[in-house]
Amino acid sequence: MNETSYKLAERLVPTTYLHQASESRTAREKLIRILMEQHKCPEEGWDDATIELFLNDLALMDSNNFPHNCGVGEREARIYSGLVSKRHYRLGHGIGRSGDIAEVQPKAAGSSLLNKLTNCMVLDVIRATGVRKTAACLVVPLATGMSMVLCLLTVRQQRPDAKYVIWPRIDQKSCFKAIITAGFEPVVIENCLDGDELRTDVAEIDRQITSLKPESIAAVMTTTSCFAPRGIDKLEDALAVNSYRQCKTNIGVYRVGRVDAFVQSTDKNFMVPVGGAVIAGFDSAFIQQVGKMYPGRASGSPVVDLFITLLSMGIRGHKKLLEERKALKSLLTQRMEGVAEKYGLRVLNTKNNPISIAMTLPENLNIPLTELGSRLFLRGVSGTRVIRTSDDKMIAGTRFIGWGSHSKSYPYAYLTAAASIGMTEEDVDLFIQRLDKCLEKFTGTKNTKETYGSENDVTRRDSKSYTRGSKGEING
Amino acid sequence: MNETSYKLAERLVPTTYLHQASESRTAREKLIRILMEQHKCPEEGWDDATIELFLNDLALMDSNNFPHNCGVGEREARIYSGLVSKRHYRLGHGIGRSGDIAEVQPKAAGSSLLNKLTNCMVLDVIRATGVRKTAACLVVPLATGMSMVLCLLTVRQQRPDAKYVIWPRIDQKSCFKAIITAGFEPVVIENCLDGDELRTDVAEIDRQITSLKPESIAAVMTTTSCFAPRGIDKLEDALAVNSYRQCKTNIGVYRVGRVDAFVQSTDKNFMVPVGGAVIAGFDSAFIQQVGKMYPGRASGSPVVDLFITLLSMGIRGHKKLLEERKALKSLLTQRMEGVAEKYGLRVLNTKNNPISIAMTLPENLNIPLTELGSRLFLRGVSGTRVIRTSDDKMIAGTRFIGWGSHSKSYPYAYLTAAASIGMTEEDVDLFIQRLDKCLEKFTGTKNTKETYGSENDVTRRDSKSYTRGSKGEING
Amino acid sequence: MNETSYKLAERLVPTTYLHQASESRTAREKLIRILMEQHKCPEEGWDDATIELFLNDLALMDSNNFPHNCGVGEREARIYSGLVSKRHYRLGHGIGRSGDIAEVQPKAAGSSLLNKLTNCMVLDVIRATGVRKTAACLVVPLATGMSMVLCLLTVRQQRPDAKYVIWPRIDQKSCFKAIITAGFEPVVIENCLDGDELRTDVAEIDRQITSLKPESIAAVMTTTSCFAPRGIDKLEDALAVNSYRQCKTNIGVYRVGRVDAFVQSTDKNFMVPVGGAVIAGFDSAFIQQVGKMYPGRASGSPVVDLFITLLSMGIRGHKKLLEERKALKSLLTQRMEGVAEKYGLRVLNTKNNPISIAMTLPENLNIPLTELGSRLFLRGVSGTRVIRTSDDKMIAGTRFIGWGSHSKSYPYAYLTAAASIGMTEEDVDLFIQRLDKCLEKFTGTKNTKETYGSENDVTRRDSKSYTRGSKGEING
Amino acid sequence: MNETSYKLAERLVPTTYLHQASESRTAREKLIRILMEQHKCPEEGWDDATIELFLNDLALMDSNNFPHNCGVGEREARIYSGLVSKRHYRLGHGIGRSGDIAEVQPKAAGSSLLNKLTNCMVLDVIRATGVRKTAACLVVPLATGMSMVLCLLTVRQQRPDAKYVIWPRIDQKSCFKAIITAGFEPVVIENCLDGDELRTDVAEIDRQITSLKPESIAAVMTTTSCFAPRGIDKLEDALAVNSYRQCKTNIGVYRVGRVDAFVQSTDKNFMVPVGGAVIAGFDSAFIQQVGKMYPGRASGSPVVDLFITLLSMGIRGHKKLLEERKALKSLLTQRMEGVAEKYGLRVLNTKNNPISIAMTLPENLNIPLTELGSRLFLRGVSGTRVIRTSDDKMIAGTRFIGWGSHSKSYPYAYLTAAASIGMTEEDVDLFIQRLDKCLEKFTGTKNTKETYGSENDVTRRDSKSYTRGSKGEING
Repeated sequence: MNETSYKLAERLVPTTYLHQASESRTAREKLIRILMEQHKCPEEGWDDATIELFLNDLALMDSNNFPHNCGVGEREARIYSGLVSKRHYRLGHGIGRSGDIAEVQPKAAGSSLLNKLTNCMVLDVIRATGVRKTAACLVVPLATGMSMVLCLLTVRQQRPDAKYVIWPRIDQKSCFKAIITAGFEPVVIENCLDGDELRTDVAEIDRQITSLKPESIAAVMTTTSCFAPRGIDKLEDALAVNSYRQCKTNIGVYRVGRVDAFVQSTDKNFMVPVGGAVIAGFDSAFIQQVGKMYPGRASGSPVVDLFITLLSMGIRGHKKLLEERKALKSLLTQRMEGVAEKYGLRVLNTKNNPISIAMTLPENLNIPLTELGSRLFLRGVSGTRVIRTSDDKMIAGTRFIGWGSHSKSYPYAYLTAAASIGMTEEDVDLFIQRLDKCLEKFTGTKNTKETYGSENDVTRRDSKSYTRGSKGEING
Repeated sequence: MNETSYKLAERLVPTTYLHQASESRTAREKLIRILMEQHKCPEEGWDDATIELFLNDLALMDSNNFPHNCGVGEREARIYSGLVSKRHYRLGHGIGRSGDIAEVQPKAAGSSLLNKLTNCMVLDVIRATGVRKTAACLVVPLATGMSMVLCLLTVRQQRPDAKYVIWPRIDQKSCFKAIITAGFEPVVIENCLDGDELRTDVAEIDRQITSLKPESIAAVMTTTSCFAPRGIDKLEDALAVNSYRQCKTNIGVYRVGRVDAFVQSTDKNFMVPVGGAVIAGFDSAFIQQVGKMYPGRASGSPVVDLFITLLSMGIRGHKKLLEERKALKSLLTQRMEGVAEKYGLRVLNTKNNPISIAMTLPENLNIPLTELGSRLFLRGVSGTRVIRTSDDKMIAGTRFIGWGSHSKSYPYAYLTAAASIGMTEEDVDLFIQRLDKCLEKFTGTKNTKETYGSENDVTRRDSKSYTRGSKGEING
Repeated sequence: MNETSYKLAERLVPTTYLHQASESRTAREKLIRILMEQHKCPEEGWDDATIELFLNDLALMDSNNFPHNCGVGEREARIYSGLVSKRHYRLGHGIGRSGDIAEVQPKAAGSSLLNKLTNCMVLDVIRATGVRKTAACLVVPLATGMSMVLCLLTVRQQRPDAKYVIWPRIDQKSCFKAIITAGFEPVVIENCLDGDELRTDVAEIDRQITSLKPESIAAVMTTTSCFAPRGIDKLEDALAVNSYRQCKTNIGVYRVGRVDAFVQSTDKNFMVPVGGAVIAGFDSAFIQQVGKMYPGRASGSPVVDLFITLLSMGIRGHKKLLEERKALKSLLTQRMEGVAEKYGLRVLNTKNNPISIAMTLPENLNIPLTELGSRLFLRGVSGTRVIRTSDDKMIAGTRFIGWGSHSKSYPYAYLTAAASIGMTEEDVDLFIQRLDKCLEKFTGTKNTKETYGSENDVTRRDSKSYTRGSKGEING
Repeated sequence: MNETSYKLAERLVPTTYLHQASESRTAREKLIRILMEQHKCPEEGWDDATIELFLNDLALMDSNNFPHNCGVGEREARIYSGLVSKRHYRLGHGIGRSGDIAEVQPKAAGSSLLNKLTNCMVLDVIRATGVRKTAACLVVPLATGMSMVLCLLTVRQQRPDAKYVIWPRIDQKSCFKAIITAGFEPVVIENCLDGDELRTDVAEIDRQITSLKPESIAAVMTTTSCFAPRGIDKLEDALAVNSYRQCKTNIGVYRVGRVDAFVQSTDKNFMVPVGGAVIAGFDSAFIQQVGKMYPGRASGSPVVDLFITLLSMGIRGHKKLLEERKALKSLLTQRMEGVAEKYGLRVLNTKNNPISIAMTLPENLNIPLTELGSRLFLRGVSGTRVIRTSDDKMIAGTRFIGWGSHSKSYPYAYLTAAASIGMTEEDVDLFIQRLDKCLEKFTGTKNTKETYGSENDVTRRDSKSYTRGSKGEING
């Protein structure tokens, strides 16, 4: 309803009743106006009603939703199924344009605006909650692995003679495969053992750079989040490490001597479904170049998810999640130490890993170690990993000894757990309880009746999730 | 409700009334069972109720929806916003696994099943409606350009020494950019003029293969759908063309002497939002290789759209759309010939282009030609292109004379329109009417009152779209 | 987005692309403005996007959706479940106010506006498609029976001494029960047989009025839609019938000598779920009085359904449905005559029933007549009735001989079918086919394999419903 | 998916991954089975996924959703608009059958089951949280006023000679109007002042019963929830009060000497949209009789809301809400006492009103008292009432002196606030803050800047509602 319609409403409903309605509308429109003005993630999250209002507004700005549209020759955004149309809020054009995924799409002013605003909000959140000096970012409908491929292909374009990507070993397949897919040759840097913890062998990186020649090295690629007992490589350290500086060449996800781009998945950082990533960096030109490497339009779905979620969360909501995660990491460590003590085990000392925790496992279980993992999995504990150190694996022609443990010869078998954002105290309780049950059972310490699958469990789950719920709805 | 619950229902509702309900349920479950058995797109589309029933069933098979789930360490599929969760039917895990986009995800049996079934159905549809001998296909959450990059990167892996991609010129930016992004050197083959029509210069391809050496050529890449007056290169022709055969090397989207892979966007072919593509081919091994090149999980959103749409459409619905499109192509040509005659123009003779139609434009308009295009656009005609032949453009270092016309020296200025699937007879009517108005106005032939934006137009649009609507709902 | 926000959007998206978006928005707002101005059902239906836009606008005008709301002491419109809130578009206040269901609710300007507009649109539709002189109407969240009770209670208020309601027998239980519930004594007028048809015995009504005294008669109540072979009493006839005039007293659904109010269910006339009715009449004061009789607020749900449906249908859509229904009545009659002939039966001649058709049944079936009905029902034929004339029934103390046949002694057993709005030609085909199968089987004429429950049937159903679908969506 | 389909899934997804999915499904089906077995509101609420699963199951049991349905003659449950169908989960048949709103509908086994289960769950909740001896209940799609009419009409049926309804004055219009609408004559019993509190004058009821004769009295009707300073009449007291016993006749909402039926609105007690009520009592036969008085089917919408909400809440959730309400009543009283003290006012002593609180108002405000109310309203305080004691009102022929204050001569002007279920501590904070601001401003005590409408307020609201949200969703 525009102003005229509001005025006309007075013929049916007394002005006094309409007054407040109009003020309420103004309050919502103000939220939208501020976003359009400042291009920042709101400090406080919006309620769902305002978010949907805005989404509908944006959708109606796309040509496929124009009442007078005549799509002869138009081949996009004709949507067959009403279910599909509904779930995309009638947005059908995706994002980007043939030459550049960041470009505005003439037929889709609404989708384009949504895309721009999401990129602005993500940049704002990254700056506010961590990497203050980030210059630019790009939300892509690609998971992290493929995003790294895109970055590496951009490097290849700029430095066609570079052949190698140096990779401090962190046993996550998609990182490693990204190097292969992008057509580079990986140079694996094995880790050093520092107490319980595995750390990047910086000296070896140095040696390799010198030996292979800086100009032949496309990038050093690392991961700032990984399973313990690997410690992570902090972005700041990478920026600071002197040895990298000598190398003039570089680029990639993690450029030698400085960081050119960093990639983070949207699902793990912003609690949306799998499928998107943020490519960010300190040099706008490089990020722009990455955008131009993506040939053609792309799915807008991960962007829509992020748009909704950031508006719903607000900066404050995001910070709160990060703080909760941190507190739960402490709690989880403490509780795992309790279990460890009970069974004569110990939590590994991995002070450089802020998310993941590793605990040693008993040597003489009644069942094979792998079985322990699958038993936990069957009990609904879906995020732990049990690592025997003896596994070997061939990946794209490279043989990894001890795959999964980040090391050829890690001294212990262990189990990892992690505190990711969105986790709750009740998750910790349930995990500890089930882990205890499993160890009790398989070490033969004692045998108690299991609670798995009992109604009891279901209800616990329910009461937990109650506290989350859809943000900002009176009613969810 | 399971059988026991049905039985218990008899305590509240008479058995006779339940009997039919139970039969109805059985009928729906039978549809699902047949799909699970045959892995084929149903001949007849399903109604929305059955589709949603199945989607919910699948979602509840993913670990994030397990009532007893305890996600300590689980970092995916925690969804913050209820709006986001809802629009993904509570599916959060995306598709694929770190090493392979086609692989099953252990934590997401439902998403994995959905992905597998969608791939099976797409393969079935491709075989049923065109390319009978297709051996395998892969639905990816990438638009066509990026899908071609993935194919070319797969080729690079297999034939690291090939440097060139031969590209018979078809002026669509994303195809050309895909070559660049994948790190190859494009060899542009200019077209021959055959009457009004521009055709691939097969002899020149031959010459280039010989001259550059077959082993250095990664692929010949072409497009089977393009704007007139370019004629398309048919897959069958490519398979048959003798000259390609001599070249043993090849690969890519369109391999020399045979076709290794063909890529089609899901939005243009299956009426879903922009964002997905199908990579298909005649050799399963190659398609499998492409899947393995995608490092990590990916967005499941385009797959969900396709899943819903194919179930809703059925083979019959898809064939019907193709037939309607064909009939409307004839109608559109005929109606454009009518307009052409009125203004002393003509429809170009491009018998090898089954979708797009080009019509010459008057030389002495009252406005510049580009203006004509934007006026049509403002009148809601969003799918036409006006081509002056004098445009030049630099793309990634290559200069194209006459960009947009597929030719350095096409003799006429022209306008294109196309009959894509989902178009209706009313779209044709509206287009012809508005085109006529525009030409009338700008050639000065006569000046009549415009109808653009009038309520009249809106209503016409509405009554048209009525015949589409959500498939298989009593009520939509 | 307001104007300022649109302006600010230009910093992210070029003005030219926004221009059309803005025009499109204006076009939609114009539709809303016209509705607010004219208070009439739009001639052409709106698309779903515009309807939802408007619904959201209205919901945000209710106090429970005010961002600054503080509901201390507020006891309505706090909605616990997000699913519930969503399905009501966040509307929670219902309609009406303690003293009057038609009154505006101060805390719910949006709901009140929606209610007023719906009432205006319904009045417009009634006038446009039938009863031109209707002065006022009231949409109530009561089915027809309870709506008649409300009308009769209003009469009671005005004429406390009237005791009787004269009821020309039409065997539908809820009409009859309405008289009892309202506390009146029914005077049943048995029908006359006129050829095959049962008609109201006007002379007997006359006699009863005279005998019981006009002042003791609250109303004559009849039904303008019923199962054949009963002919209906047309409103116009009632208005014209002389004999009623002499009676000064009256009131009710059908007042003696004139019609005071007529009630129609919203589900049967406007294709919404069961649960609402329209109470309309030629004297605004009486209808207003009915509104004031409803003590307290009421469910807004049936009003919302009607609001959406009328906007989606438009006057044109409604007229089209009525025309289709009429045409299908002819077709259905003709096809039933075909079946009748085959089995030596006949379609009863009931020219005064525009909706329902009755066909005689064979006397010596292999199964009891009632069984025939239930067999048809099990074959998905849910709208037919098989009438043996021998049934007796006690309803609220009154014994009805031949209940279901509108007559104590109707000469034939028969089956009825009807052409209601929303029916399709394919419904007719399916019905005739199944009726034929049943008769064939049970008369022993021939025995063929049954198709019930076969996939064939399911698909037929599906292809039929395809032509309906969600109105006004590009994509359904 | 049935068992066979699950088995077939193993051809696409490894059995181990399917194992858990199947267990998870079993867990949900178990919840449903327990409900079907026990007919009780679950102790713990279900998550939304399970609720929607069950709703879809039920909808598919209705004939309008049968794939093989052929609705010739079927006039209900054809739904025109997809938006309408969706919001009713494809349920279209409403509840009840022509003669009885509690009866099973043959064409709608699913709707009927849903209705039965909802009635069972409501009965269970009423017994669990208050009125233990309740024998039966009936959920009706009528607000409280109309539900009382239905009860009174049932009484009229049973005792046609009773004329009066005795009504201890409680100034809520719809109660009083219900008496009138049902055709009875109200006998108003003015209240006694007991300290600050207004209480029912039991002796006067006694006198009236004797004077008018027990047999002429249809019922004594009272309200167990009302605005302070009226104290409420407790059900238990009514059951115990000796004086009522002597009167053998009666009936209604509150029968003399015992309670025959009590009516509660679903919106105020179960946090659903306005529009439904529960009619309950200690004698099943009477409640059944009420159900039979409702002629015809009725809207199923309020029942669906209640069904969803009770499953989502569970007994535990409901109890929690009641406890929170009780605690907030104490808090609110305490905080209002704080404000009262500041302005030389006092909270009235009304120990028999468990929900509503009254506070005296200053005599010499700068603005009229009514203005104070509307200023609060404009500040989003929508649940308070300001009562001057001088208002007179004619309602249906009866003149009430001091309408709104439950008394002809209440000694003070006052303001009421109430603690209803669903209220939060933050609501109390906001209210106190705004009340303070208003009093400050209008008593001239001090003038501070207002915060109304500031972004600050909006955000406070948002963070508050965060804790509610959709029950049982991981993600809301």
